[in-house]
Amino acid sequence: MLKVGVLGGTGYAGQELIRLLFNHKEVEVKHIISESHQEKEFSYVYRNFKGFNDTVCEKMDLEAVANEVDVLFSALSYGVLMEKLSQEILKKVKIIDIGVDYRFMDKEEYKKYYRKDHKSIELSKAFTYGLCEWNERRITDSDHIANPGCFATAMELALLPLFSENVIENKVIIDGKSSLSGSGRTLSVGTHYVEANESTKPYRITNHPHTNEFKKAMQLFLDKNVDITFVPHIVPIQRGILITCYTIPKLTLTHEFVHSIFKKYYCNTPFVRVLDKGMYVETKWVRNSNMCHINFEIDKENNSLIIFAAIDNLIKGAAGQAIQNMNIMYGFPQTMALDFIPTCL
Amino acid sequence: MLKVGVLGGTGYAGQELIRLLFNHKEVEVKHIISESHQEKEFSYVYRNFKGFNDTVCEKMDLEAVANEVDVLFSALSYGVLMEKLSQEILKKVKIIDIGVDYRFMDKEEYKKYYRKDHKSIELSKAFTYGLCEWNERRITDSDHIANPGCFATAMELALLPLFSENVIENKVIIDGKSSLSGSGRTLSVGTHYVEANESTKPYRITNHPHTNEFKKAMQLFLDKNVDITFVPHIVPIQRGILITCYTIPKLTLTHEFVHSIFKKYYCNTPFVRVLDKGMYVETKWVRNSNMCHINFEIDKENNSLIIFAAIDNLIKGAAGQAIQNMNIMYGFPQTMALDFIPTCL
Amino acid sequence: MLKVGVLGGTGYAGQELIRLLFNHKEVEVKHIISESHQEKEFSYVYRNFKGFNDTVCEKMDLEAVANEVDVLFSALSYGVLMEKLSQEILKKVKIIDIGVDYRFMDKEEYKKYYRKDHKSIELSKAFTYGLCEWNERRITDSDHIANPGCFATAMELALLPLFSENVIENKVIIDGKSSLSGSGRTLSVGTHYVEANESTKPYRITNHPHTNEFKKAMQLFLDKNVDITFVPHIVPIQRGILITCYTIPKLTLTHEFVHSIFKKYYCNTPFVRVLDKGMYVETKWVRNSNMCHINFEIDKENNSLIIFAAIDNLIKGAAGQAIQNMNIMYGFPQTMALDFIPTCL
Amino acid sequence: MLKVGVLGGTGYAGQELIRLLFNHKEVEVKHIISESHQEKEFSYVYRNFKGFNDTVCEKMDLEAVANEVDVLFSALSYGVLMEKLSQEILKKVKIIDIGVDYRFMDKEEYKKYYRKDHKSIELSKAFTYGLCEWNERRITDSDHIANPGCFATAMELALLPLFSENVIENKVIIDGKSSLSGSGRTLSVGTHYVEANESTKPYRITNHPHTNEFKKAMQLFLDKNVDITFVPHIVPIQRGILITCYTIPKLTLTHEFVHSIFKKYYCNTPFVRVLDKGMYVETKWVRNSNMCHINFEIDKENNSLIIFAAIDNLIKGAAGQAIQNMNIMYGFPQTMALDFIPTCL
Repeated sequence: MLKVGVLGGTGYAGQELIRLLFNHKEVEVKHIISESHQEKEFSYVYRNFKGFNDTVCEKMDLEAVANEVDVLFSALSYGVLMEKLSQEILKKVKIIDIGVDYRFMDKEEYKKYYRKDHKSIELSKAFTYGLCEWNERRITDSDHIANPGCFATAMELALLPLFSENVIENKVIIDGKSSLSGSGRTLSVGTHYVEANESTKPYRITNHPHTNEFKKAMQLFLDKNVDITFVPHIVPIQRGILITCYTIPKLTLTHEFVHSIFKKYYCNTPFVRVLDKGMYVETKWVRNSNMCHINFEIDKENNSLIIFAAIDNLIKGAAGQAIQNMNIMYGFPQTMALDFIPTCL
Repeated sequence: MLKVGVLGGTGYAGQELIRLLFNHKEVEVKHIISESHQEKEFSYVYRNFKGFNDTVCEKMDLEAVANEVDVLFSALSYGVLMEKLSQEILKKVKIIDIGVDYRFMDKEEYKKYYRKDHKSIELSKAFTYGLCEWNERRITDSDHIANPGCFATAMELALLPLFSENVIENKVIIDGKSSLSGSGRTLSVGTHYVEANESTKPYRITNHPHTNEFKKAMQLFLDKNVDITFVPHIVPIQRGILITCYTIPKLTLTHEFVHSIFKKYYCNTPFVRVLDKGMYVETKWVRNSNMCHINFEIDKENNSLIIFAAIDNLIKGAAGQAIQNMNIMYGFPQTMALDFIPTCL
Repeated sequence: MLKVGVLGGTGYAGQELIRLLFNHKEVEVKHIISESHQEKEFSYVYRNFKGFNDTVCEKMDLEAVANEVDVLFSALSYGVLMEKLSQEILKKVKIIDIGVDYRFMDKEEYKKYYRKDHKSIELSKAFTYGLCEWNERRITDSDHIANPGCFATAMELALLPLFSENVIENKVIIDGKSSLSGSGRTLSVGTHYVEANESTKPYRITNHPHTNEFKKAMQLFLDKNVDITFVPHIVPIQRGILITCYTIPKLTLTHEFVHSIFKKYYCNTPFVRVLDKGMYVETKWVRNSNMCHINFEIDKENNSLIIFAAIDNLIKGAAGQAIQNMNIMYGFPQTMALDFIPTCL
Repeated sequence: MLKVGVLGGTGYAGQELIRLLFNHKEVEVKHIISESHQEKEFSYVYRNFKGFNDTVCEKMDLEAVANEVDVLFSALSYGVLMEKLSQEILKKVKIIDIGVDYRFMDKEEYKKYYRKDHKSIELSKAFTYGLCEWNERRITDSDHIANPGCFATAMELALLPLFSENVIENKVIIDGKSSLSGSGRTLSVGTHYVEANESTKPYRITNHPHTNEFKKAMQLFLDKNVDITFVPHIVPIQRGILITCYTIPKLTLTHEFVHSIFKKYYCNTPFVRVLDKGMYVETKWVRNSNMCHINFEIDKENNSLIIFAAIDNLIKGAAGQAIQNMNIMYGFPQTMALDFIPTCL
């Protein structure tokens, strides 16, 4: 039985992680770290845990918790872990970081997107990028995982096969639609119910950090430089993200051919499904699951190939993929604790 | 491995049942019956099943399916099963009816609430009322279960302990709040998105059939006649119901005493939780689960005891309780396939 | 042209007031006071005003603004106005207070509900209770109005005719459903989108201040002591409140008779509509308007008369009623700037 | 006082039209035509009209109504008006068609998008395209108006200035987000509350009829052929659309320069607002109004100019623009009955 600790357990990704790990047979959550709710029962903060879990949230003592658990999941906000992490701690414990601090940025990029100086950027190289469907072998051999961002996960799963097969130009436009849970649990006017409900809007136009993450991932996996224009939008839903990728085919494509490319890369993966022709992705069909749905349409008139992907941002885009990474690291079946059907209703 | 069939599998309760049974180790869903989608793949109708299930929906042939399965769940609309069911079929197969046709009404009551003549009212007595927490012994010995209605489940779980201990008057007012999934998948103006969204309203004022079901249940379990005024309201949420029960104490009550009554009846049940003083129920804390949360408040100034209960109407109020009934019938742990934490987000 | 100032103009009620006054022919909004957004353009805070209004929000200087305007609307949170108001200011300017500070509480009641010591409770008697349909004559003669609370408005409009005609017992149960805008613009976990969306819950069980306001209003208008049990609930909608009032008839009532009572009191009022038999109130039918819809149902079996009322909490329950009060004070038609049809969509 | 008739008055656009015309001083709505609700009171169908309007819906007799009114608004579904309209009727009455039947398609295009044979395509040339901000002079001289589609309105207002100034390439990608009211009042699984709520999805990928309308408008106004890839998405909101237009600058652009282009075309129009740098459009800021908000961002790194526009689909995208057209036709101020501030809450 693996002993697990969760840093930032009372954020939304943290809560999902603890909820999903409850049904993982090989794991026990021993420590929940939450600065904002220390010494409160976790089930007081999240009353859905009433009767399931009487763990008390602890304050952050990274070294102490590193000594007591086998795996540490971090669901901390940007800028917290990078202040505390050290080589010594990395040696003591496996870390799966759902946060952004070690997701292959250099110091300048981190500063650009997060307006903070990174205190331990050199530790980044100890982290393997945890895009499970594309990096399984390296994850198997890793002790530390940088779990991909939610939009980045969807983008990469949707476009890596096409770039890999060299059938689209290196210039893509991605229009993203995000649920509100993507903004986390920190209060703000923009996420106040009355302000967010019944409205849709763009945000971080052309400067979302997942743009950078996507470009780096293309270099990592395919050694390719890709230009990407990415505009995310907020839509008033609880969970889920949808991306619409406008690409330019390098050759005349048929639906069957593109479908065969996706099949080639994903037919043996448990969580990526390419929909049949005429079926479109919808966030509800993947809600509360680790699934990624993909579909595409060819617009011959405008020489355009449009790819859609939908995931649950808190699961495949955060906690679920983190567990999938742990499963790979420990040789458990990838689907352990993740083998459930989306709740479409 | 039990072989199971689902009648009305493409309705919301049916879909939930099939989704939850996917994770039940002792059961295999062999037949999905759907008049409206016959010969279509179930995963075409519910795309969350894409890659999980390739069952094709069948048209209704009750006798045939009764011959091939051990347990038949019915999630049919009112008035369908009562046209087809017979003593012969009852002998062949165990039936758990999520529908209303055999939920202890007499012919007149059925006509009053459903405006149809019941064609097989005499079969009602073959059905045991499946309120698991209060009827476990009888369920164990039964072959046919009438699964309680969603509002009725919440009402009975909230009030049976208090009536049983004789601490409240036999006259209660219940104000109900229902999600839209309670209205099912059949299209109507009232459930059209633009009409239902951003609005709340009462419906079936004083003539909801669960009023009758509740009164019958009080007679069945406690041999008591209870007057109930019940007004349900629609609130624009996907799933969940909440009831607010206004009762009159027969004696001076303390919070501790009332809490001890609930504890007496529910401390050993896996799905009913009585919240601590000052914590209020909220539908999200039980969403996507078989849990029932209860809290209460004493209004001394007005000599009033107000009890609140929240359940997920599609799970504890339908598919989940149906599985709980099956688990009891077969001696499986009650929590089998139902042992998951609510998804509050 | 009346010169008007708005205290607390960037709260939700303040914004509605300014929006509605834009179409009032006899009024010009000269000053918008907002501590939280001082020196920002109002149209920067509320971008729906882009191009309509270039007023800059000012910090609070009560005396200064009182010198410059004819009417001062206050939409401040509880506890702010009571710190600043004085007899001198009352002499200088007409005040219509949408807030709670002078809504006929005594010092103890204020402390009980708002946990603060009231600093100028003696000024309360300078304020007339602004329930327009019941207090028009006194409002005409008043310089200072305490605008009724949103739930209190609905309760009083629904029940005053019945108490006045002495047809119901002095003990009522009221179950309220409130939109999120009722909680204002101040951030809190409970009003964070992801927490509030897709859920419903009770709050302030049995200790909501409108309980007290309602009782006081019954004394004021009818010299009656009424017992009321009131439980408000949050439903995830933007605006609107609905109340369900469970009352006990003193005599055998017919639908026609009760309807005639409501007609008697409201047939000449522009904003209260009693629906025909079989038509139920719904918050959307009054959304974005100053209307109050009422319907009722008699439950003979349980000797119960159930009355429903719906209003838009920000308009009839706040800004609209405030303008209606001003219209009465100045002898304008009551409907001036309020004569628009609800936007049901 | 103009006498007005509304065809298809009980659809959503029809209802908005009747609601807005209630406050139009120069107009009286004399006839409401509704096949689906004939002989019912309009206020029975839309209870927000209770007490405002006692008009009874009539069945369709196009000739009769044409004889009795000055202006006929048509808010009929596609394919209805084209069956009934004739040269004779066109001579009798001014028509403003919110529907699609005469929006400059040829017979093949109509068939392609609506899968019906157009019965009176030759009448199209009697209709002037009613994009008020760009076609005012011709509208002034017209008797019959084809009111632009909602997405087309947003696209054209956002892009015409840039094409007119020749600063962007003739190839654009437009990603649209539509509210549910855009799908109308006809029931369907996709617009059933439980199916549409809490989800987002693309629809009519690359074959939405507004694609064609936009291209035709570019030819009409600028004599330009423009390639457009347009993918609309559904987001779960009541009203409002947002478009994100990805364009390629022909030269190096500065924010100031692009802003000045928009200013040039819209500084004297009452309903189009270009937001200041750093302020982004959001559907709520134009909700319940005839406003169009536009903002843009230059992505130098990828040589991309991204323009955003938001309108209320039922007002600026339908009923409001129709009234604006009537105002122009009759020489009323354009803002008559449309001069209200958006209700952002």
